[in-house]
Amino acid sequence: MSTTSGVELATLSRGKRLLSEVRRQEKKGSFTEIFYSRLMALSTRDEKLKIELFRFVDALPALKSPESVARHLLEYLVRPDVSLPPGGAQLLMGLASTGPSRSLLHFASHTGARLMAGRFIAGRDGVEAVKEIERLRRVPMTFTMDLLGEAVTSEVEALAYQKKYLDLIEDLARLSQAWPGIDQLEKASYGPLPKVNVSVKLSSLYSRFDPMAADATVKAVKERLHPILSAAKNHGLFVNFDMEQHDFCTVTNRIFREIFTQPEFADWADVGIVVQAYLKRAEADLIELRNWVIARGVPVHVRLVKGAYWDFETIIAAQRHHPVPVWEKKTLTDACFERCTEFLLDNWQHLRPAIASHNVRSSSKAQALAEAKGVPPRTVEYQVLFGMGEPIGRALAAQGERVRTYVPFGELLPGMAYLVRRLLENSSNDSFIRKSGDQSADDALLAEPNSSALPPPAERGSDAVFVNNPEVDFAIPENQEKMQDALDQIQSALGFTVPIVINGKREESAKVIERRDPSATAVIVSKAHFASVAQADAALAAASAAFPSWRDTSTKERAELLRRTAEQFEKRRFEISAWMVREVGKPWREADGDVAEAIDFCNFYAAEMERLSEPRKRNLPGEWNEYFYDARGPAVIIAPWNFPLAILCGMAVAAIVAGNPVILKPSEQACRVGYFLQEALEAAGCPAGVSNFLPGDGEEIGPTLVNDPRVAVIAFTGSKAVGLSIIRSASEVRAGQREIKRVIAELGGKNAIIVDEDADLDEAVAGALASVAGFAGQKCSACSRIIVIGDAYEPFCHRLGEAMASLIVGNAADPATNVPPVVDADSQARIERYIEIGKQEGTLIGQKAVPPELIGTGYYVAPSAFIDCPADGKLCQEEVFGPVVAILKAATLDEALAIADGTIYALTGGLYSRSPKNIERVRREFRVGNLYINRKITGAVVDRQPFGGARMSGVGSKAGGPDYLQQFLVPRTITESVMRRGFAPTEEG
Amino acid sequence: MSTTSGVELATLSRGKRLLSEVRRQEKKGSFTEIFYSRLMALSTRDEKLKIELFRFVDALPALKSPESVARHLLEYLVRPDVSLPPGGAQLLMGLASTGPSRSLLHFASHTGARLMAGRFIAGRDGVEAVKEIERLRRVPMTFTMDLLGEAVTSEVEALAYQKKYLDLIEDLARLSQAWPGIDQLEKASYGPLPKVNVSVKLSSLYSRFDPMAADATVKAVKERLHPILSAAKNHGLFVNFDMEQHDFCTVTNRIFREIFTQPEFADWADVGIVVQAYLKRAEADLIELRNWVIARGVPVHVRLVKGAYWDFETIIAAQRHHPVPVWEKKTLTDACFERCTEFLLDNWQHLRPAIASHNVRSSSKAQALAEAKGVPPRTVEYQVLFGMGEPIGRALAAQGERVRTYVPFGELLPGMAYLVRRLLENSSNDSFIRKSGDQSADDALLAEPNSSALPPPAERGSDAVFVNNPEVDFAIPENQEKMQDALDQIQSALGFTVPIVINGKREESAKVIERRDPSATAVIVSKAHFASVAQADAALAAASAAFPSWRDTSTKERAELLRRTAEQFEKRRFEISAWMVREVGKPWREADGDVAEAIDFCNFYAAEMERLSEPRKRNLPGEWNEYFYDARGPAVIIAPWNFPLAILCGMAVAAIVAGNPVILKPSEQACRVGYFLQEALEAAGCPAGVSNFLPGDGEEIGPTLVNDPRVAVIAFTGSKAVGLSIIRSASEVRAGQREIKRVIAELGGKNAIIVDEDADLDEAVAGALASVAGFAGQKCSACSRIIVIGDAYEPFCHRLGEAMASLIVGNAADPATNVPPVVDADSQARIERYIEIGKQEGTLIGQKAVPPELIGTGYYVAPSAFIDCPADGKLCQEEVFGPVVAILKAATLDEALAIADGTIYALTGGLYSRSPKNIERVRREFRVGNLYINRKITGAVVDRQPFGGARMSGVGSKAGGPDYLQQFLVPRTITESVMRRGFAPTEEG
Repeated sequence: MSTTSGVELATLSRGKRLLSEVRRQEKKGSFTEIFYSRLMALSTRDEKLKIELFRFVDALPALKSPESVARHLLEYLVRPDVSLPPGGAQLLMGLASTGPSRSLLHFASHTGARLMAGRFIAGRDGVEAVKEIERLRRVPMTFTMDLLGEAVTSEVEALAYQKKYLDLIEDLARLSQAWPGIDQLEKASYGPLPKVNVSVKLSSLYSRFDPMAADATVKAVKERLHPILSAAKNHGLFVNFDMEQHDFCTVTNRIFREIFTQPEFADWADVGIVVQAYLKRAEADLIELRNWVIARGVPVHVRLVKGAYWDFETIIAAQRHHPVPVWEKKTLTDACFERCTEFLLDNWQHLRPAIASHNVRSSSKAQALAEAKGVPPRTVEYQVLFGMGEPIGRALAAQGERVRTYVPFGELLPGMAYLVRRLLENSSNDSFIRKSGDQSADDALLAEPNSSALPPPAERGSDAVFVNNPEVDFAIPENQEKMQDALDQIQSALGFTVPIVINGKREESAKVIERRDPSATAVIVSKAHFASVAQADAALAAASAAFPSWRDTSTKERAELLRRTAEQFEKRRFEISAWMVREVGKPWREADGDVAEAIDFCNFYAAEMERLSEPRKRNLPGEWNEYFYDARGPAVIIAPWNFPLAILCGMAVAAIVAGNPVILKPSEQACRVGYFLQEALEAAGCPAGVSNFLPGDGEEIGPTLVNDPRVAVIAFTGSKAVGLSIIRSASEVRAGQREIKRVIAELGGKNAIIVDEDADLDEAVAGALASVAGFAGQKCSACSRIIVIGDAYEPFCHRLGEAMASLIVGNAADPATNVPPVVDADSQARIERYIEIGKQEGTLIGQKAVPPELIGTGYYVAPSAFIDCPADGKLCQEEVFGPVVAILKAATLDEALAIADGTIYALTGGLYSRSPKNIERVRREFRVGNLYINRKITGAVVDRQPFGGARMSGVGSKAGGPDYLQQFLVPRTITESVMRRGFAPTEEG
Repeated sequence: MSTTSGVELATLSRGKRLLSEVRRQEKKGSFTEIFYSRLMALSTRDEKLKIELFRFVDALPALKSPESVARHLLEYLVRPDVSLPPGGAQLLMGLASTGPSRSLLHFASHTGARLMAGRFIAGRDGVEAVKEIERLRRVPMTFTMDLLGEAVTSEVEALAYQKKYLDLIEDLARLSQAWPGIDQLEKASYGPLPKVNVSVKLSSLYSRFDPMAADATVKAVKERLHPILSAAKNHGLFVNFDMEQHDFCTVTNRIFREIFTQPEFADWADVGIVVQAYLKRAEADLIELRNWVIARGVPVHVRLVKGAYWDFETIIAAQRHHPVPVWEKKTLTDACFERCTEFLLDNWQHLRPAIASHNVRSSSKAQALAEAKGVPPRTVEYQVLFGMGEPIGRALAAQGERVRTYVPFGELLPGMAYLVRRLLENSSNDSFIRKSGDQSADDALLAEPNSSALPPPAERGSDAVFVNNPEVDFAIPENQEKMQDALDQIQSALGFTVPIVINGKREESAKVIERRDPSATAVIVSKAHFASVAQADAALAAASAAFPSWRDTSTKERAELLRRTAEQFEKRRFEISAWMVREVGKPWREADGDVAEAIDFCNFYAAEMERLSEPRKRNLPGEWNEYFYDARGPAVIIAPWNFPLAILCGMAVAAIVAGNPVILKPSEQACRVGYFLQEALEAAGCPAGVSNFLPGDGEEIGPTLVNDPRVAVIAFTGSKAVGLSIIRSASEVRAGQREIKRVIAELGGKNAIIVDEDADLDEAVAGALASVAGFAGQKCSACSRIIVIGDAYEPFCHRLGEAMASLIVGNAADPATNVPPVVDADSQARIERYIEIGKQEGTLIGQKAVPPELIGTGYYVAPSAFIDCPADGKLCQEEVFGPVVAILKAATLDEALAIADGTIYALTGGLYSRSPKNIERVRREFRVGNLYINRKITGAVVDRQPFGGARMSGVGSKAGGPDYLQQFLVPRTITESVMRRGFAPTEEG
């Protein structure tokens, strides 16, 4: 300990003093305190029990009847994998079995939850919370108000939030006039502070908040903020911007800096923002902020926190294969917190420090640093959470520090996300608060965090060698710029003419077709030579001729070709996306997702082919048997326009890696994008003839390709009518045909989401909206029916209708666009026809009209939601392939399942529910190809969600799955008798 | 050592004496001795080198040109996995590169092999061998002559052997007159012994030697033996029966006892038989023999050996899943040998003992026992092998013992099997002879064998849980009796009327069809109610109604149903086989194999479904994904008559275990046998409606079944024409259809065997014959073309033609039958038509005419082999489905492959070759569904040889393979977001 610095020694001695003060404060336990500590003790004993208990608490506000409460309690807690205290299961089952005792359970659960919530939530509204504020001021501790609320899914809800903030400001401005001033709270070293402090969550002010659409988001949020800030400034209040998930970080900082540089607010010092020390970027953000403040000339406040979304951030990063933005070890977060504290104390003239922590070590370190650096008293503010940090807040206040409590208020239901997050935080093993009762652990609690510890390498859950390609993170401004640059650059290349490629040679044809930008039909995006029947025949001959040598090329070499093709896509990523935006009107994220999926297909099928190339052996003494796969023969690939790269690529590279040369027929609407595949394959070294590129008119060359006896495989994705006719034609064996043709067909869908009575409506509305309107509903996986059970129907319809009307319809090139135009005039007319049908069959409850200035400039349609359409009517039975949805009501899950199942398709489906039993039943009985539970039903990822449906949705093959390649292969068995003259080697050489 | 018995002490002291005498004798090395010991030293250093060297030696006699020798030497020896002595590879490659040095290699190899052969083979014929015999007599050691020869594949060859034995007897009788008598050799304690002793291999006397056809085999062999034995007896010679593989053991003993009980030979004492101590049954056989001798009243000789087919017996038993007939540990064989020795010495009055061993311990033990038991001198004979056991023989002779050498003679080529067996024996690690040079190991060499050591449990090579069902071993007389009993018992049940079963209820119909015994068409075997279209519709309705609940039945339960079904088959095994014999004319072994395959399908698909029911998981933090399989829907099963139980069962239980109810349409010719499946399923507890049994006329009810919209899967095995029409019909989507139909079609073949120039013709002729004529060629896997390369053509054609003419055409119920009648009059007419075509297109070179007494009594056809038919002619292009084959000549492997590939089919294929390069190339380029190397091309076994072809032979699915069940299943993916409020469990519960 000889090297311990003076600050460290002071930290330890202050820490010990603070700890004993905290313990003194903790003694003052109330009834709810006891209830709460029992719950914590129970839930931390068993991780599984904790999870199930919190899931129950999460669902509780949605459970209206005693029956429902009892049922959910049993479903969550009485199960073999949850260990309840002795007798617990019997007690619960007994209570759940009769009406009166069910009412008791209902009462107890809701009362318990309300008591718990009351510990963390100060009241339903600002007025109710004032009682708690006044109590705190007597400690003395001041406050900042936090308005809890549900997810904002529509502009109606966003405006309601804005109104609540405005009301809160008026209420507190009025009420606070009665409060006597308290120097310890309102006299900082650098001057007076407002009595009233309000925290604002920016995402609650705008339903289309999206960091990628940075400009649109900044503009909209600033508009909504303006009256709030004006009122606060006029009343002399303090406003702090809260920080949410990492995705929102950059855009939140940008809004903060832009709005507080505006003349009206540029001189306002009573404003603050949050920095999260768990972010790896925390220190860099502080430096940037300090530099901005220097330019602004007026200081701002910084609330330094550790961060409350750690689980979420690590999960999302893992799912997206993005770098994890947070420190992976708690000790690194603690170390970062201390470094940030020191930075703030060094820059307190610019950045007013507020140290928000329940960790005694962290607070003591701030105290010791302030003393060592000669920072004047009451410069540093300490912040704690209402209901959690009160003992430490009181202890700091008793030492004369300036302490502020973060006080949430609002309805119990919308506050549940906050409540569960608090419960988790308090039951986590790393939680400081829980440990502080343990006298012997003091030294450990106060120990300096080890900043040299490196985060462990991320581990993968599965044993697969394949790793998904991460999508571009458009929350990062650099990526937004790259995309914009790519869009700018292709501008001059518009009108590019796509050639035909046969046996490695570029060819032209007499028929050149133009493709117009669906977002702005005045512009010709690309042209393509459409192949003649003779050219189709030549392509078939080339593929046929290339077959033997390509079949005999080693698996390794074929797999490497795919990996190099993926690298080509990666190189030209933004360029391809930009063309996709222009050629088919695919918005940024979806265009990039399309490229990422193409990359995934290449890498996944390469790994799969390597896996399948290991023969399955059955060796006996004297006899060796192996089962392996051989190429099937030339393949025709007929692709759709909606995933113009990914689906074409997936089908093609599966065929190629299996040893089959291909004829690629890209969609007529997406020849330029399809041509990127041909270019990438060639750049990767694909031999001439192995990939032949044949843009053309399906009706003209399709039959030639499908019927030719040289073709062994036809892979088709598209409409049911065309798919079934291909299956029919391919079943005819023609003269000279060697193989019985294999047809792989992915067809349409009429996909439904079931919303259970106990669903989390925040998630259900957002997920359904994304499933219906993403890429204007032009995905075979898109949702076109929503079936809502029981009481959830009214609020769901209400919120979804409003959310629908809040969508932004616009040019696909604009990152703010939610709903781009559809692909062509035929599509537009068809969708408009279905909107008319919807109006005849039912009632329109939400629609975003096409903005007047866009009408006639592109193939825009109005996203629309209908109710009261008959389940067997046209709107509920026919594939619309546009942003149109019918919402149906079901009394029970039985009825919902029957409706969901009542079409000829079986592609995707969804369920939002918090009932384990219902989830289990829907998993079993909602027999679609891809079922999604508690998330949107689009966006299947290669390997993770092998994609494809049964019934009239396709032949049941699943792209991106373990059985897909087999369709391009023929199994063979070789048996060798290795016994000679009665002797045999025992093992194969 | 205090407990060591007197005999044991005497054994050890005699052993030491004998050992030093052996070493003295070994010193007398010749030139070939040195060459041989170098080869042994080289080959025992490296197991891989040894195997390759012996494989080369095995092929050598077939290599006519220097180029061929050089090529094979390089292919076998110069490869990464064989470690040659330093510089060896370079030397070989250098020598192989030019004409003159290739000639040197050729010369050296053949000379080397000849020298080696000369060590073990006394001469080309009896006369040549006499020089060696006379040399041995001077030692003094006497002899027994062993006539080496190639496998007997035709009666021409069998008769040639008979002639050779007769010649040998005459030659030796004459030559031996000049030999002076030697008391040590010809004066046994019990009387004089003939100077000439001849060993006879019974299997060489009859080309259709088959222990199952015991009566026919015994009769034929006795006929051939008669002149041999008469001549030998007349000349006063000694005849010993050799013992070959275990399968032949029982029938050989029977022939020995029967023929030497015949009045002509009943008093003859100069006869002997062999007992193999490595057989677990050796002691039991000795007891039986002794009891028979007591009854006969005249003693016989017994040669006690260890046994030379140990590798072969263990391999064959493992392949057939039969119990291993030999001791699995060498020490147990040694212990058994000593117990048998003791038994012989106790019974020397009945069984004259000949102790044949190169193990000093074994011989010394016999000496010590003889002494202890007071057995008179020269009672026990000692036997050693020519070229191997001479030192020990000389040592024993020097001690005054009576010693006989086993002297093989014959051509080098036919003797190669013997030579390689000897080489192996001498290079094996357990070989005593090799060790005996090592003085320090004397104690180990003389140690008492540990008879308490138990054989280790048999180990399986693969990791599969599935185990193939063993076929009935018809070499066991009890099994022959059971089969005969079953045939007798069903006699009274003939005329059984097969009902229709719909939804568990027996139904009749207006149309009852009779089925006649193809072996005796006067007999009605069975009748069947043929379903009407209305009944087909009712069956479809039943299957449809049963679908939901059967689909939802657990995998475990469905799998167990299959296992219980297999048990039902096992219970009624002989009964089912007997009906199969009568209903479709399937011979015993093939009928039993059919039942065994049905059992395998049940157990294999049960295990496969359990394997597939484990979902493939891709769990990420916060998101759980699983990929699994669901039932597809009602299945129609349309089966052929040639595997009336196995194929019907395989297709049906695959559908059933996957959760799909079935409509079973058995073949019109095999309704009774098909009905066994329905009965077994019901007895196993299959719910009503899950299996509906619908005998009927394919043309009448087929379209109803195939076209019905309720059908999801059609599994068909049969003709190409019907199969393709089903594929076509099923591709039409009809009103009310939910699923795009999946058709599984196994169609025809035009299968070829390629016979390489260096092929082992013994094996090639036998394998081709089995592939062509087994079950009268009525297998889709049967061989109908043989393509012979270069110089192998003439001898192959010659031998195959003769072999063909030696086949026994007869009633399927007769175990001696090789070629049963074909299934019906249509088949008979078709095959006869193709025989006519063969005569027009080419030349008939071998045919077994239908015996006159059978003509008109059944659907008999004459198995026929043709040459000179054009490869693109009718006989070489069209499926005959009968015992007719065309032999084609090819100059090169290229040409052979081109011919083989030149049909529209790709089902099975074969190659006989001893060129590693050619084998490798054919594996790659002979692209059939099932390729067999150096064995027959029929008889695929479930799991070991998944069966099915591509091109016009089928859709590429393989029955009994890992991908088969998937065709009856639909894959589904379920994705569940398990993140709530930003938290998630880390592992699924």
